[in-house]
Amino acid sequence: MSLYMLKAGKMIQRITMLGAGNLATQLGKAFKQSGIEIVQVYSRTKESAAALGKLLNTPFTNRPEKIDRDSDLIIVSVKDDAIAEVLEQTDFSTCLVVHTSGSTPMDLLKRYTGSYGVFYPLQTFSKARDIDFSEIPVCLEASSTETLDQLKELAGRISKVIREVSSEERRILHLSAVFACNFVNHLYYLGGRLLNDQGMSFDLLKPLIRETAVKVMEMDPFDAQTGPARRYDENIIGKHLDLLNNQPETRAIYQIVTNSIYQTHK
Amino acid sequence: MSLYMLKAGKMIQRITMLGAGNLATQLGKAFKQSGIEIVQVYSRTKESAAALGKLLNTPFTNRPEKIDRDSDLIIVSVKDDAIAEVLEQTDFSTCLVVHTSGSTPMDLLKRYTGSYGVFYPLQTFSKARDIDFSEIPVCLEASSTETLDQLKELAGRISKVIREVSSEERRILHLSAVFACNFVNHLYYLGGRLLNDQGMSFDLLKPLIRETAVKVMEMDPFDAQTGPARRYDENIIGKHLDLLNNQPETRAIYQIVTNSIYQTHK
Repeated sequence: MSLYMLKAGKMIQRITMLGAGNLATQLGKAFKQSGIEIVQVYSRTKESAAALGKLLNTPFTNRPEKIDRDSDLIIVSVKDDAIAEVLEQTDFSTCLVVHTSGSTPMDLLKRYTGSYGVFYPLQTFSKARDIDFSEIPVCLEASSTETLDQLKELAGRISKVIREVSSEERRILHLSAVFACNFVNHLYYLGGRLLNDQGMSFDLLKPLIRETAVKVMEMDPFDAQTGPARRYDENIIGKHLDLLNNQPETRAIYQIVTNSIYQTHK
Repeated sequence: MSLYMLKAGKMIQRITMLGAGNLATQLGKAFKQSGIEIVQVYSRTKESAAALGKLLNTPFTNRPEKIDRDSDLIIVSVKDDAIAEVLEQTDFSTCLVVHTSGSTPMDLLKRYTGSYGVFYPLQTFSKARDIDFSEIPVCLEASSTETLDQLKELAGRISKVIREVSSEERRILHLSAVFACNFVNHLYYLGGRLLNDQGMSFDLLKPLIRETAVKVMEMDPFDAQTGPARRYDENIIGKHLDLLNNQPETRAIYQIVTNSIYQTHK
C-alpha cells in the first residue's frame, strides 16, 4: 500500500507509546529504524519509562496526565489487564488508539475514542534480543476502513506480512501461539534441565531443536512427528516414566503429551 | 581423529545395515555420501528392505539367514524391542555390532559378540527429509577403547560433533530429546490444528516457531520464556481455557504446562 491509497486518513508519522515491556521495546525500535517518530514513552513505573525513553532517545513519563496526545497514533502495549486502566486516566477521545494484545477484543477501545484498532505482531519478544520485523505477521483490525488503511500503511513500513484478523480469530491465533511458542520454550527448558541434572549441556540439544523447527517449515507437523509416543513403544515409554519418578510434574507432562500424540496418530 | 590413531582396530569401510526405517535411511545415505560401502540392507519386511536397498543402490534381503556378515560393521537400526530379536536369528559372534538406540543399554549386545558399541545420532529423522549430518551430535559408547577409536573415526567422516556418552547418560539424553523434539513437534501440531479449525493457516505460526527455536541458540530457555503463563495473567489463561472447553485433551495439556511454567518462574 502506498501513500496515495490513504484516501481519507493521514499517514502515521508520530507515535506515542504507552507501555515499555518486551513488545513495546522491540516495536519502538522497529518503528524508529523505519524513520517513524516516537514522540513519547509512558510507563507506570519510572524505571521502565526511562529505560525505553533513553533507548529510543525520546521523552518519557510515568504520569498519566503528562501523556503527549499530540501524535498520529497512541499505541497501548501494556498487560491486558492494564489496558482499560491506562485509557481511563486520560482523555483520548480525539486520538487514534490501538492496542497490541492477542486476547483483548478491539471493542474494549470503543469507550475511549471513535478511531481505534489493533496492531498485533505475532512473535515472541524479549527486551535483550533484537529481531528482524520484516517476516513477522502483523495482524490488524480497525474501527473503519480508513483507519485500517492507515494501519496497513504503517505496518507495511516494518513488515512484509500483513493480515486482517478479527478479534475472534486473533484470540485463537494467540492461543495457538501459546502452544507453538510459550509451551515449546518450556519444553526446551525441561529438556535442558534433565541434561543439566546429569552434568550434560543444553548445547547437545541445539541441532535437534533447530531441525525440529526447520522441518515444519516444509513438512506438516503431523507427518513430521517421530519418537516413542508415535510408534507407541511402550517399553521406552515405561523406562522414561521410571526415570521421571522423582519429578511428578514433569512426569505428568510426559504422560499427557505422550497420550495426546498416541491418540492423534493411532 | 586420523587413520594412524587407529592403532589396533581396522578402519571401517564396509557396513551391513539391519533396519530400514527413518534413521537407517538417513544414516545409510550419509555413509554412502562419505564414500563408505553399504554391503547390504536387511529389514524384516521385504518392501522396506527393497526401498532402502534401491535408494542406496545395494543388495537387500528380508531373510535373516542371508544377512551378509562379511563387513567391518553391523549397524542395528530397528525398533528397540526388535534389537534382540534380530541379533538372535544369526550368529554375529565374529562381527563388530553397534545399535543406534537412545534408550537401549550397550550391554544388551554382549550376548551376541565380543566387539560391540553404540552409535547414536541425536536428531529427528524422516525418510522424506534429507539432512546435513555434519552438525548432528553422534553419541558413542564401545566395549573397548579399540572399538571406540574405530567408531570415532567412522563418526568423524559424517559429523563434526562426536561425544562419548555412557548408557546411563544416553537414556537421559534420549528422554530430554523427547521433550525438546517429539513433544515440541506435537505442540506445533496442536497449534496448527487450532488455526485450521478456524480456517486459518499454519503458515502464520512459522516465523514464531523459527524465532522460538533460534532464540534458545543464544539465550537460556529460562530467560527466553514469555507469555501469559510466565506473567501468570489469570485473565488470559481463563479465556484460553474457555476456548478449549470442547477439547478436553488439549485443555488438559494447556493447564498442566501453564502450571509448570508458573511453578518454574514464580
